[in-house]
Amino acid sequence: MHEVFQKPDPLRIRLSGRGGQGIILSGVIIAQAAMNGGQFVVHTQSYGPEARLGASKSEVVISQREIAFPEVVLADILLCLSLDAFHKYGTQVASHGLSVVDDLVPIERPREGQIVLPLRRTARELGNELTANIVGIGTVIALAEIVEIAHVRQAIKEWVKPEFHMINLQAFDRGLQLGGRFRVSA
Amino acid sequence: MHEVFQKPDPLRIRLSGRGGQGIILSGVIIAQAAMNGGQFVVHTQSYGPEARLGASKSEVVISQREIAFPEVVLADILLCLSLDAFHKYGTQVASHGLSVVDDLVPIERPREGQIVLPLRRTARELGNELTANIVGIGTVIALAEIVEIAHVRQAIKEWVKPEFHMINLQAFDRGLQLGGRFRVSA
Repeated sequence: MHEVFQKPDPLRIRLSGRGGQGIILSGVIIAQAAMNGGQFVVHTQSYGPEARLGASKSEVVISQREIAFPEVVLADILLCLSLDAFHKYGTQVASHGLSVVDDLVPIERPREGQIVLPLRRTARELGNELTANIVGIGTVIALAEIVEIAHVRQAIKEWVKPEFHMINLQAFDRGLQLGGRFRVSA
Repeated sequence: MHEVFQKPDPLRIRLSGRGGQGIILSGVIIAQAAMNGGQFVVHTQSYGPEARLGASKSEVVISQREIAFPEVVLADILLCLSLDAFHKYGTQVASHGLSVVDDLVPIERPREGQIVLPLRRTARELGNELTANIVGIGTVIALAEIVEIAHVRQAIKEWVKPEFHMINLQAFDRGLQLGGRFRVSA
């Protein structure tokens, strides 16, 4: 059971995985959801020539005020879908931070604040492993309420191709359920 | 007639307009196109609560090497779709830089390196003013060859909803033609 996450402002989120896992789209959706909620947002993604295979990341900083330092060094929230990304970013998390790591990533023993959840396996059950990023968004939002659920659904509809709306909305709901199980009840 | 643009490395691009003009999408498409071309890319967008109405910007830095300083202060290339954005970013262009400004933006007299082109009017002729951002991408790519044309077409297909593929590909082609008229022949 994880302690209730105290949301800092600004809130620094790092989404990571392999190229092809939809990491950019995840960042766009969280950024859009935060914007839909009237917050200040800086969204940065960087990738190199090997982005389609190597570790990929997308960072979103959210605040009630203008954001002076958009860089993310230590993340308050890390989502990690691949071993590459875990090696690169797994320890770059603030001491009060929260990490959600896919359970297919072979990590030895979760540290404090690391929650291992079946993101890719859940996405496969839904019929499309490519929705693991959206399952992951659901889990971190259930755990940390970084943006409002309705604003994420709206952002999914704005950015995902219509034929994939339903499966992505399902993936988001499954993520909310997965993450919700780890919340401390008040 | 504009001098041939000497492309620096890293190349700093700032896309700007009002909220709702698809500025984020323009950045995503250029970043994806550069990534499709095997380059290093950092893509940053920031917006505040008034993003849907006020000036909006999306910045893309492209290089053959890893990018140490992803901030854009003076842009090498500026695309400007609205008066708000022109007031905010119009002068933040490098001395060797290139600006493409929509001709519905009432600027008094273009400065050196500023090219005024009918982006929104062309988009309206195509039947959807919302494609002015893609017309704009076409013009800067024709002028400065920042990424390869085939990679942009691919990126449009990756990020634009299928029912809008055709009009956006047309908008891109019209932008290429508009921008191409201002190139110096070798």
